[in-house]
Amino acid sequence: MHDRDLREFASDNYSGAHPDVLAAIAAANGGHQVSYGHDVYTERLQEVFRHHFGPQARAYPVLTGTGANVIALQAACDRWASVICADTAHLHVDECGAPEKVGGIKLLTVPSRHGKLTVPAIEREARGFDDEHRAQPQLVSIAQSTELGTVYSPAEIRAITEFAHSRGMSVHLDGARLANAAAHSGLPLRAFTTDAGVDILSFGGTKNGMLIGEAVVVLNPELDHGVQYLRKLTMQLASKMRFISAQFVALLETDLWLDNARHANKMALLLHELVQDAPGLHVTNPVQSNAVFASLPPRALAELHQHFHFYDWDESSNEVRWMTSFDTRPEDVETIAKAIRSSTEDR
Amino acid sequence: MHDRDLREFASDNYSGAHPDVLAAIAAANGGHQVSYGHDVYTERLQEVFRHHFGPQARAYPVLTGTGANVIALQAACDRWASVICADTAHLHVDECGAPEKVGGIKLLTVPSRHGKLTVPAIEREARGFDDEHRAQPQLVSIAQSTELGTVYSPAEIRAITEFAHSRGMSVHLDGARLANAAAHSGLPLRAFTTDAGVDILSFGGTKNGMLIGEAVVVLNPELDHGVQYLRKLTMQLASKMRFISAQFVALLETDLWLDNARHANKMALLLHELVQDAPGLHVTNPVQSNAVFASLPPRALAELHQHFHFYDWDESSNEVRWMTSFDTRPEDVETIAKAIRSSTEDR
Amino acid sequence: MHDRDLREFASDNYSGAHPDVLAAIAAANGGHQVSYGHDVYTERLQEVFRHHFGPQARAYPVLTGTGANVIALQAACDRWASVICADTAHLHVDECGAPEKVGGIKLLTVPSRHGKLTVPAIEREARGFDDEHRAQPQLVSIAQSTELGTVYSPAEIRAITEFAHSRGMSVHLDGARLANAAAHSGLPLRAFTTDAGVDILSFGGTKNGMLIGEAVVVLNPELDHGVQYLRKLTMQLASKMRFISAQFVALLETDLWLDNARHANKMALLLHELVQDAPGLHVTNPVQSNAVFASLPPRALAELHQHFHFYDWDESSNEVRWMTSFDTRPEDVETIAKAIRSSTEDR
Amino acid sequence: MHDRDLREFASDNYSGAHPDVLAAIAAANGGHQVSYGHDVYTERLQEVFRHHFGPQARAYPVLTGTGANVIALQAACDRWASVICADTAHLHVDECGAPEKVGGIKLLTVPSRHGKLTVPAIEREARGFDDEHRAQPQLVSIAQSTELGTVYSPAEIRAITEFAHSRGMSVHLDGARLANAAAHSGLPLRAFTTDAGVDILSFGGTKNGMLIGEAVVVLNPELDHGVQYLRKLTMQLASKMRFISAQFVALLETDLWLDNARHANKMALLLHELVQDAPGLHVTNPVQSNAVFASLPPRALAELHQHFHFYDWDESSNEVRWMTSFDTRPEDVETIAKAIRSSTEDR
Repeated sequence: MHDRDLREFASDNYSGAHPDVLAAIAAANGGHQVSYGHDVYTERLQEVFRHHFGPQARAYPVLTGTGANVIALQAACDRWASVICADTAHLHVDECGAPEKVGGIKLLTVPSRHGKLTVPAIEREARGFDDEHRAQPQLVSIAQSTELGTVYSPAEIRAITEFAHSRGMSVHLDGARLANAAAHSGLPLRAFTTDAGVDILSFGGTKNGMLIGEAVVVLNPELDHGVQYLRKLTMQLASKMRFISAQFVALLETDLWLDNARHANKMALLLHELVQDAPGLHVTNPVQSNAVFASLPPRALAELHQHFHFYDWDESSNEVRWMTSFDTRPEDVETIAKAIRSSTEDR
Repeated sequence: MHDRDLREFASDNYSGAHPDVLAAIAAANGGHQVSYGHDVYTERLQEVFRHHFGPQARAYPVLTGTGANVIALQAACDRWASVICADTAHLHVDECGAPEKVGGIKLLTVPSRHGKLTVPAIEREARGFDDEHRAQPQLVSIAQSTELGTVYSPAEIRAITEFAHSRGMSVHLDGARLANAAAHSGLPLRAFTTDAGVDILSFGGTKNGMLIGEAVVVLNPELDHGVQYLRKLTMQLASKMRFISAQFVALLETDLWLDNARHANKMALLLHELVQDAPGLHVTNPVQSNAVFASLPPRALAELHQHFHFYDWDESSNEVRWMTSFDTRPEDVETIAKAIRSSTEDR
Repeated sequence: MHDRDLREFASDNYSGAHPDVLAAIAAANGGHQVSYGHDVYTERLQEVFRHHFGPQARAYPVLTGTGANVIALQAACDRWASVICADTAHLHVDECGAPEKVGGIKLLTVPSRHGKLTVPAIEREARGFDDEHRAQPQLVSIAQSTELGTVYSPAEIRAITEFAHSRGMSVHLDGARLANAAAHSGLPLRAFTTDAGVDILSFGGTKNGMLIGEAVVVLNPELDHGVQYLRKLTMQLASKMRFISAQFVALLETDLWLDNARHANKMALLLHELVQDAPGLHVTNPVQSNAVFASLPPRALAELHQHFHFYDWDESSNEVRWMTSFDTRPEDVETIAKAIRSSTEDR
Repeated sequence: MHDRDLREFASDNYSGAHPDVLAAIAAANGGHQVSYGHDVYTERLQEVFRHHFGPQARAYPVLTGTGANVIALQAACDRWASVICADTAHLHVDECGAPEKVGGIKLLTVPSRHGKLTVPAIEREARGFDDEHRAQPQLVSIAQSTELGTVYSPAEIRAITEFAHSRGMSVHLDGARLANAAAHSGLPLRAFTTDAGVDILSFGGTKNGMLIGEAVVVLNPELDHGVQYLRKLTMQLASKMRFISAQFVALLETDLWLDNARHANKMALLLHELVQDAPGLHVTNPVQSNAVFASLPPRALAELHQHFHFYDWDESSNEVRWMTSFDTRPEDVETIAKAIRSSTEDR
């Protein structure tokens, strides 16, 4: 029913599932398994996550990235809490208010550069403790890689977690694309998370080649209170959980997660290389994962939109986002790069 | 990693996915498709649902049954609403309070017999209209088949929808096992829904042989306001939705949905037949779908629990539930039936 | 602008404020006081509440009874909690769903006799601990006096708190009319509360002669976590709190609270005495506080409604409620009693 | 129990009630009145509000300013809505997250100058309509006078309402100090509200000399849907409402509201006049109502804090707020002004 040859640059969730992931689902099929996570695949998933995030880590497979974020935020927050995040945070701009509406969480946004929070930015809102008129800042949420495709160093994250902890706040990491950050830096997953003082994270499976599935990973056991209930009441508990878990196992017990991310990143770098010196095109964020952000002349944009799906990121500055995926091929990149160059040269 | 030969009688979600469903997922894989439902499979899904529920029907694929219910309830309710349901309703007893906690819906439960609501029962709570101290009854929610395995006739549902509408209330049908009800009655899906005056329904895919996936189906276009936002903010919007939709298409564009349900029902009838006259065993609800409810002597229960997974339904009356699935085999039924008989005869 | 001589029997909140309460407000006026509770009257209020409820008690003045209940429930409950209460509980039937909609609390109602919970009734819902599909029962809520005008003995409450605590649940007491219960029994306020193992209570001021004002009183310091924030975010924090606190001080540092309640109770007993043997009238609940519940022939009710305001409690059984207040006079009781007798005799 | 001679400059809610307001409460006392707003004082209140805001206006007396805001926001918003407001808005910074946590409203804050929104600022967030990933902007909320003491002209408000309406959004006005704005401009209340296209407003009583009481005033009848239920479920419904309404009637059927506001404004202007040229003191916002904002040398601030209550507004810039009230006397202003000057000269 659809063209299996098509590749777009709009989002990494335009891809399907990696063949190995599909094979893992098929292997997990047949027979009966206890539902809601009491199956052998979810048991194995715990081992796999502990391997990557340390022995204290506990993973809760869930269904959507927004779901993972909303559970994690609630796990870390009292009813009267607020969460400090970047003004570009997915949980602020792209979740239809789910953190507020479902989680009852107030977000305090601060300006960010290239999508990254810094201690001075956090400090702007890390105040009013013990003042009942102010929703109490109890959590800082960062994304790795960020929504703008940039990657924090472990030291940058450590600075944030140390500051947060010194103020009695926890730190959440939205790792919808954590694999891409690891691929960029060549560091293990725990370097950015467990070892950098992160308390809880959302781990992304879908963008990394899964069909569906994300996970809340509790790194600080003090936050592991009631998460199973939060998962159910936020409607993130899969009945046939074996199929979510089997996908994660397929990704994480081999290097599939890393290979997928490396490839996507490489395709973004290729795209960057091919278009960076196009006339009138200005790359707006460092290319550190699987996204290229650039501003282009309006006429070039109009022309490109006729042939390709991609998002306008900031209409006021003619900035767009192109994303690559585990299944983007070099020839797909060359095709769009050629079109981009051509559109800018036409003027 | 697991025994593909095992069959349990605890729940129909202990099954995996039907092979045709897995094949449909594989066929939908590869290439890029627009995410969040703007793909060809979701387009086809709309046609398939319209075929079954009428031209005005609009389906919203979602991820869990609780999610489908909470979206449907919100779609039909103002912030100050209450929903009348049976005291046995899944949305009251098995959803960790999601309707209240996420949807802000107050539930008004009424006693039911064999899981079925009646107009006199609804009438007990259908009062206090225009009284600001009372959460306003705006919706009646019934399940088909019910949580106790029974099936409403179209006339029974029609009586409820007529009463509800006469009081300004809408009617929601929790169709997590709607296929089983259709299989039991030999009637098309719309006989119990569209044609019986139901306004909105949750349609179950997972229990009918899907890997994951449910749908909110809006039958009364007046309720089709903001459902797409409710789906996103309740975290039920799949990014790679093609995979949810393709499964539904596989089920519903052939008779697979019906064959699966028929088979499961047949297995329940077989179990019923084989155990009904066991000494001390009392079947507690009519067997009209894929569940058998029975009370057994405590010693028999204790013995059975050593060998089989199944749920104690009401510990005070030693009532248990056995469920069959699309992949339950006659020999599996015979095995447990034999054990049941043996456990009761042992005494 | 209104008739100061009128007395109704619809509700104890048809009354105004006791003159001593008004005088206390006037005395607290003038000059500046720190807002939001950092004033001398609120300081004094803490002493007064400690006097009545013990040195560990901490009072939080709030604005409405529903507000007090919703704060107390949240203070005692995790996000995934449910609360067990009588099917006649004010928080279930008369608060427009505020516990669910604002507090995110699921209510589990159980049948009650004369408005009183018992351990066997609570036991029906005190189950499913550790099952993520069930909103976790964490609190039992009782009312003293009950919504049906009855009064628990300390031993009855102690039985409930002991059972609740043995199951890891706390106990909330809705004391909108706690003064009436104390007046009935001749026991101090703490006999029913602190000394009976109650963890948190809503203390009613308005029905006891205040203009406006209620209090959440935390008796178990373990629940005194975040209550100040809950009070603000549920919009129950008065800016000029001195005026709420001064009223409570006026009531509770003398016997005014008790005198008001005693008088109201006495008027209810008088009404009961005068009408109990009216033909066709059946008193439906023991008269233990300031309410008389009775069923009457429909024609009698119709006649009475032409001349008096009062509530139909249960239309199906022609049951009504008459309430007395601190300012109900014997002659007012005699007037309505005469009309009641006359209406029943007319038939 | 307290010093009736004390006047502070921390907040206008440090004041008590105006004597005429207290007298109105006393006059409304005695006898019985139907509760929850079905009394003669609330009937009169409707007339009084219609007099000021036009024949279509409908007032709902409530208990707190936060309560009024949260009701108004919900009345104007679907569950999936967001509200655009200034980053200085009370509902963002001072309500402990009540709009998000109780109302389920997402706030989109934009930078403001002197607390005032402008169309270009609103435009930054008035986007993403029909995109399910974005909480839908449905309301713009402004404050008059603003939290920084400034006052919009009717034309400024008109520009905002026209823009908002052109985008399908409504406009809410937080009028906690609307009287002060009217006093400043010499215009009737409706000039800024009804006549400027505002749809719904929060009207402040407490800061204008009431003991307790605010009102939601619905100006656009299309938003008058369910407000009575929202008031109850947000726990803002006073049982003895006559006492809230009687205060409003006292304020608004004479010029008391205006006299109180004029006096407070005058005192602020006096303070401004007396301190504006103090060395090192910089007035940071135009003085247009009853607040003076200024930055002072840190040593001066430290000294002043030893003798007076007032709020540090922005610690990073040593900015403070002084507020005057209806009962602030010229000599009180002179006293603090002298201290301010002295503190700055000391250096």
